[in-house]
Amino acid sequence: MLIVQKFGGSSVADAEKVFRVAGIIADTYCEGHDVVVVLSAQGDTTDYLLEKAAEVNPSPSKRELDILLSTGEQVSISLMAMALEKMGLPVVSLTGWQIGLRTNSTYGNARIKRISLERLRQELDKRRIILVAGFQGINKYDDITTLGRGGSDTTAVAIAAALHADKCQIFSDVDGIYTADPRKVTGARKLEEITYDEMLELASLGAQVLHNRSVELAKRYGVDLEVLSSYVRAPGTKVKEVVKQVEEMKISGIAKDNDVARITIIGVPDEPGVAFKVFRALAKAKINVDIILQSKGTNHTTDISFTVAEGDMETARKILQDYKEVIGFSSLSVDKNVSKISIVGAGMIRSSGIAAMMFEALYDCKINIHMISTSEIKVSVIIDENYSDMAVQAIHNKFFGN
Amino acid sequence: MLIVQKFGGSSVADAEKVFRVAGIIADTYCEGHDVVVVLSAQGDTTDYLLEKAAEVNPSPSKRELDILLSTGEQVSISLMAMALEKMGLPVVSLTGWQIGLRTNSTYGNARIKRISLERLRQELDKRRIILVAGFQGINKYDDITTLGRGGSDTTAVAIAAALHADKCQIFSDVDGIYTADPRKVTGARKLEEITYDEMLELASLGAQVLHNRSVELAKRYGVDLEVLSSYVRAPGTKVKEVVKQVEEMKISGIAKDNDVARITIIGVPDEPGVAFKVFRALAKAKINVDIILQSKGTNHTTDISFTVAEGDMETARKILQDYKEVIGFSSLSVDKNVSKISIVGAGMIRSSGIAAMMFEALYDCKINIHMISTSEIKVSVIIDENYSDMAVQAIHNKFFGN
Repeated sequence: MLIVQKFGGSSVADAEKVFRVAGIIADTYCEGHDVVVVLSAQGDTTDYLLEKAAEVNPSPSKRELDILLSTGEQVSISLMAMALEKMGLPVVSLTGWQIGLRTNSTYGNARIKRISLERLRQELDKRRIILVAGFQGINKYDDITTLGRGGSDTTAVAIAAALHADKCQIFSDVDGIYTADPRKVTGARKLEEITYDEMLELASLGAQVLHNRSVELAKRYGVDLEVLSSYVRAPGTKVKEVVKQVEEMKISGIAKDNDVARITIIGVPDEPGVAFKVFRALAKAKINVDIILQSKGTNHTTDISFTVAEGDMETARKILQDYKEVIGFSSLSVDKNVSKISIVGAGMIRSSGIAAMMFEALYDCKINIHMISTSEIKVSVIIDENYSDMAVQAIHNKFFGN
Repeated sequence: MLIVQKFGGSSVADAEKVFRVAGIIADTYCEGHDVVVVLSAQGDTTDYLLEKAAEVNPSPSKRELDILLSTGEQVSISLMAMALEKMGLPVVSLTGWQIGLRTNSTYGNARIKRISLERLRQELDKRRIILVAGFQGINKYDDITTLGRGGSDTTAVAIAAALHADKCQIFSDVDGIYTADPRKVTGARKLEEITYDEMLELASLGAQVLHNRSVELAKRYGVDLEVLSSYVRAPGTKVKEVVKQVEEMKISGIAKDNDVARITIIGVPDEPGVAFKVFRALAKAKINVDIILQSKGTNHTTDISFTVAEGDMETARKILQDYKEVIGFSSLSVDKNVSKISIVGAGMIRSSGIAAMMFEALYDCKINIHMISTSEIKVSVIIDENYSDMAVQAIHNKFFGN
């Protein structure tokens, strides 16, 4: 088999961890597989480099920042190569430009366009373990670019897709995808399998295991992903197109997101085009609006509530104040102390009453629901932040028992 | 004018120094010149990276070591670019592979084969300041190589040669070439100019300002070099083919080298081929032999004395002991407490009595000369190390007054 493995920054933070990871790579290779490994920068290297940059220039060009940051992964791959050499294994480390990983020119957040397979194939033919610097590529000018958040995961998936790898394993300090955050919810279970779509919903809801970009890419090219631990040798969670049905599993997971603020515009004239004006103004400022609720007010007016990330709340408020006369509302209220709780499950499409089970769990705890949003595989509610942990546990108990 | 400037590691060690150097670059650019700057890794970055490598593998492959070490210069160029950006100047940083600096495949000590001018010319046409990562290139496999000691100086000279630059300025913490080490010899003077050949002799004699490789390359391509200080804005010393004659300057400089050991083979049969056997054995072990003296012994035997670097003394002694019967000598003596004092001057060819002046200076101080070696532009003597400082001062006084 051809296996692509990716190890994150904390997995290679020091010499001891480098050797632990080298052990995993060596075992895979010695089982007879072809192995391509993608590495991130060690531990807090990126922060250290950003600090050095800030000493010189608080707002450097992204082109130069990318040249600086891309050194972090180059250090990782050479050190890991040395560790594998010490174990007597054939290994070669390659940078982004050396594998011909071409991107567009958006420095700091570049998108992968293609990977030339020549060098990778050559080295695989020589039965070498290939270590690739993640997170980086080159654009059409042969300038170094970096891929932004989740860049190394994306590199791994892109290589797996380009080489038609049999699987792509993402190692981190988390050993899989759970039905809920296992540090906070008693009874949280590790999933054996999850669909791309469920994973996408969970990732965007703050599960923080895999970055959405890499899951989207995996879905597009049908790359079988597996999320597993660098520390514990055990099967992780597989992410794929269709998973086998587990009868009693009505949902796959529960996610909580506290980075939510609710804005309510009160007394908006009940006439066409008002919502459009509001959300166009916010879109211009690149503010993402999540859940939207429009409710009947008094006297031919309506109230519009919506949620944004907490960091965008103040900007959104200012923009709306500036448009007060254009929109014609009477007042604004904002609230940071809310939380979004979501249940995700591909089975929802076929199974009715899932949302009702969630609401019942909340009702049992006397938790008030401010807003509701649903999609084919997801139900989200906005509640008071104070009750968020209790809500997740109650919903988890309802679906998975306690 | 097109000017190539090179700044060493200590010149860019921290943010403050980066800005001092950025000031020099900016001034040169703002005078209307085209500027290409070659940078080394910051301060002790290279040592730090070597330490990290040693933690993982005490004897890593040179290929992987080169990938690791080449990150140091990449960090330097990006940070310097950010500093120049902050000053509002147009700047672009480029790695070794980005300027197409091709080398042979001797990892860790590669030789430059060629530089593709396309990217450099493009950026110069855009009137950008170009910052190039020194010390690095790529071989025919597109693998990263490093150039070994003096690699950044060599990069600068090679770029100056390839672009037919008007001059190549080497900035360091030394402000020029002196007639003797100014920290140790009173009255040492800075030279305005020196020839390539004199510089080569002085460099190999331990003057440690410019590495021989870069001077040889400058001589071959007729690149006008200038050695000057990153700290003091003042003319440095020019290194060129022919310098204007200063009548009273009989020599250009005096150098001292304490890293010398003398080995004497006593009682060697006085027959053909013996010296050949001795020095072939040493050459096989890559031991460089410097000064050689053969003197008449007793009973149809001779004594052979020669000098090696101190670090090679023990190996040389062991090799000779192993060959004792083959060579047929009676005993060996070794002495680390010797020093080589040399005077260098292109004018020696035309001017007689230079060596005699040197010997007279030593005689005046009652310093005994063990060995003498001369070339067209150099006279070296081996004396007791204890007297080396005194000898340099006395010779300096003799030639330059006190």
